[in-house]
Amino acid sequence: MTEPAYVAMDWGTSSFRLWLVDRAGQVLAERRSGEGMLAAAKAGFPAVLQSHLAAIEAPDHLPVLVCGMAGAKTGWVEAGYVDTPAPLAAVLKQAVRVPGEARDIRILPGIAQRDASAPDVMRGEETQLLGALGLKAAGEALVCMPGTHSKWVRVKDGVVERFSTFMTGELFSVISRETILSLAVAGADEDEAHDIASFKAAVRAAHDAPAFVANHLFGARSRQLLFGGTPAAARETLSGTLIGVELAAGLSGSVPQAGVRLIAAGRLAVLYRLAFEALSVNVDPVDADEAARRGLSMAAAAIWTKSKDL
Amino acid sequence: MTEPAYVAMDWGTSSFRLWLVDRAGQVLAERRSGEGMLAAAKAGFPAVLQSHLAAIEAPDHLPVLVCGMAGAKTGWVEAGYVDTPAPLAAVLKQAVRVPGEARDIRILPGIAQRDASAPDVMRGEETQLLGALGLKAAGEALVCMPGTHSKWVRVKDGVVERFSTFMTGELFSVISRETILSLAVAGADEDEAHDIASFKAAVRAAHDAPAFVANHLFGARSRQLLFGGTPAAARETLSGTLIGVELAAGLSGSVPQAGVRLIAAGRLAVLYRLAFEALSVNVDPVDADEAARRGLSMAAAAIWTKSKDL
Repeated sequence: MTEPAYVAMDWGTSSFRLWLVDRAGQVLAERRSGEGMLAAAKAGFPAVLQSHLAAIEAPDHLPVLVCGMAGAKTGWVEAGYVDTPAPLAAVLKQAVRVPGEARDIRILPGIAQRDASAPDVMRGEETQLLGALGLKAAGEALVCMPGTHSKWVRVKDGVVERFSTFMTGELFSVISRETILSLAVAGADEDEAHDIASFKAAVRAAHDAPAFVANHLFGARSRQLLFGGTPAAARETLSGTLIGVELAAGLSGSVPQAGVRLIAAGRLAVLYRLAFEALSVNVDPVDADEAARRGLSMAAAAIWTKSKDL
Repeated sequence: MTEPAYVAMDWGTSSFRLWLVDRAGQVLAERRSGEGMLAAAKAGFPAVLQSHLAAIEAPDHLPVLVCGMAGAKTGWVEAGYVDTPAPLAAVLKQAVRVPGEARDIRILPGIAQRDASAPDVMRGEETQLLGALGLKAAGEALVCMPGTHSKWVRVKDGVVERFSTFMTGELFSVISRETILSLAVAGADEDEAHDIASFKAAVRAAHDAPAFVANHLFGARSRQLLFGGTPAAARETLSGTLIGVELAAGLSGSVPQAGVRLIAAGRLAVLYRLAFEALSVNVDPVDADEAARRGLSMAAAAIWTKSKDL
């Protein structure tokens, strides 16, 4: 086994992933945890980090590079923002060192869009963009990053020009748990095979008439009352409706020839690929975990190993 | 005081209103309660009703006419539906008598739209429509009935042709309580003066770009992070966004010369009038409580007093 060179860490709101990486960018060990920013703010960020570093036997001198919500005002150390238009190269130059720690721990900044008519912020996604697109990506990219708070980003020649956050995932979560629709989806198993027909029909209906979103949602319940139908179908209708409305907005500008860069992982990657398929839009998929790790490695190399091959 | 002729009752999901009415349709007494369908399903509908009848000293023989969710499958006695296209006159002819009660208690049916591509149901609103429009209303009306589950209804010559439910009120409730936006609106006082400028701006933005609804919502939080702003402004943005999207859908067909009939009460009446004003759409407002009582009186007269002047 080669020597570890640094630890890369994507520290989000509700979970984190951490990688022990060698100088060549190879992963030597990996950890995942539910101790995201919210949990760590209570337990203490240094203690949480140290317990995981000890578990992978990271040497005391090993530096740690962090991206994500740990750099928020309510996180560990506020890492600020790079403002749009934001060169991805600026992100890796503005890492903030955590004070009072013997170990060299740095947190990457987010990106802010200080436009009074469309204010927006991201933290963590800028690192995924770096990993997925690289520093020198020429041309235009339209990037879709699904999640609790999905991001749609326009990148031109390595610069984040504009982006929009859609709270699609969080809406799905509260609507399926806390509204009358919880009755319609009760018993639907998250792991069962998708009712792809219901999902795609809901995506298309919502995309074609997004103003009717609150009506399409209620339709999942009315349909059950009047025509029967499974909880799984209602769940797919709910999910497809919310994703279809998001896609209507995200695709409302020009779509590059190469299609949409979809940076996603797990269940969301599957759902969004189906959604784009329902609308006959090409996608170029990238694994989100892989993109985050690669972006962190690029930043770590720039900060500590001064590699020339970035 | 004149003799009471019947009790009229609008028994909704989470509350009810009840009126003691004389033969001429004059209100002799009124009661409101939080013992809606959900509470009454546990306590027992007969017991809840009897306690309130006793409080207004309603004679034992006095008949009771009920509309609303008490007639749902999960309510007291299922009162079925009149299917669209639904003449309002059919609603008052299909009241269902509650079995096993010495007192003559009848529940009015709802209206169902058995259209596989736009299934929908209403219970209670059909009685408000009856009260607001009457049985013989000639011409076309576009009716907006704001609420937990807002209804938009097209009525032509006394017949409900089509309608759509929007779960706008319920979405506002869960989004402001259960999502990250709860941080943005925390401390906003429901009773304070509206931030009318924020509200109207949000209505217009959402109406003009409804696909961006989940982005406009998140903007209430981003704006606070980047530019400051009060919880009240965030709350109005949230409310205006959801109402603006509903209006974009409701107004997407033709709007009659006379404008939109707005059947609403209380805070919602104020908010929706401001929303229509922001879009320069004329409204003809009707008080929702008054409409329900009048509709029940028309039905009671038809059922029990066989009044000829309906």
